[in-house]
Amino acid sequence: MQIDKQTLMDFPQRYRTQLINSLSGFKSANLIGSIDESGQTNLSIVSSVVHLGAHPPLVGLVMRPNTVPRHTFENIKNTGCYTINQVSQSFWQQAHQTSARYEKAQSEFAQVGLTAQFVDGIKAPFVLESRLKYSVKLREIIHLAVNNTEFVIGEIEHVLVEPEAVRADGFIDLQALETVTVSGLDSYHRTERLSRLSYAKPDLMPSEISLDGPTPSMK
Amino acid sequence: MQIDKQTLMDFPQRYRTQLINSLSGFKSANLIGSIDESGQTNLSIVSSVVHLGAHPPLVGLVMRPNTVPRHTFENIKNTGCYTINQVSQSFWQQAHQTSARYEKAQSEFAQVGLTAQFVDGIKAPFVLESRLKYSVKLREIIHLAVNNTEFVIGEIEHVLVEPEAVRADGFIDLQALETVTVSGLDSYHRTERLSRLSYAKPDLMPSEISLDGPTPSMK
Repeated sequence: MQIDKQTLMDFPQRYRTQLINSLSGFKSANLIGSIDESGQTNLSIVSSVVHLGAHPPLVGLVMRPNTVPRHTFENIKNTGCYTINQVSQSFWQQAHQTSARYEKAQSEFAQVGLTAQFVDGIKAPFVLESRLKYSVKLREIIHLAVNNTEFVIGEIEHVLVEPEAVRADGFIDLQALETVTVSGLDSYHRTERLSRLSYAKPDLMPSEISLDGPTPSMK
Repeated sequence: MQIDKQTLMDFPQRYRTQLINSLSGFKSANLIGSIDESGQTNLSIVSSVVHLGAHPPLVGLVMRPNTVPRHTFENIKNTGCYTINQVSQSFWQQAHQTSARYEKAQSEFAQVGLTAQFVDGIKAPFVLESRLKYSVKLREIIHLAVNNTEFVIGEIEHVLVEPEAVRADGFIDLQALETVTVSGLDSYHRTERLSRLSYAKPDLMPSEISLDGPTPSMK
């Protein structure tokens, strides 16, 4: 089935939204925790968190300030601090519910039944229920004029993770943490591992490696 | 387990790379198809494709021009055209192998055993084996000075998809297409659906909806 550009543009708006949202592939599911100057907390699910680099440790996310996460975006701009909390199987429906258009005075933590967790020295709240989470310091906001969105870049600072998920080579087993993934706007999935694969080299095909990484002879 | 900023910075480089790459959550797995002015094709796996918006239909991806996808980045800049091809279970190992450092004269299509597919009017090659793919017209390249990477923004033009995966409301069932997802640098996963959820409203918790979207009474 081929859908040409004109057909794509002629689809009804909701149909096109669903279809285009499916094209990028499986997405990350994360809750962004933030707080305003008066202490009002905010929580917002996003599927656009993307790894930018490990040296320095940077993460990006796309926000549409004119739609739901507007309070989150304001808080990030004003405080320069936020948390990213992976969504796992024990609270994926509550995480989805944070996308409802609550008033600013209503904290999504209370509205959806998740628990704000504070760590000394970090202003923004974590999600207690999340099994892998970290605080982020805002580095840069890039306005994407092409569709009036904001690309928010931050530096990873303080990581909270269940220790048994961290494997010998630093790999974190997200599947063991029951982290979920999203497709389209609203489809949530758990995962089944195929395998980890060895680092690709031109002269041989990749082989399966253990969860702890390559054995010394493969390095 | 808490890992503070200093501990994070003190980890050995490879360990930190693995750990930081796990933090963003599950990632999309896509092959970027491109071609140079002389007709030499190129194929490169990326895990950073991110949905930017549906109106207009835009997609972003992060590239590190100094590492493996450098030929792909050059081709995109020079031709303004590329394809994005979802990686599925029948060729995930071959897709991973495109990350090996082949010379420019070696097309990854031939090296890993995937098939270049050309469509009239579109310069860049698709991956025949991919079950959901589309051509993209370059709109903008934003240099991210913060870590010397490039954020490549393109407009989705021509979609090729197996028709039975497109559901009544435009949602595409990526799980039925056996699209895979990636965690960390090298862990591949298939998915098991939890559910699609209804559009979140402040006054009620989300409910499970069918693969074809909400029933008329729920809209």
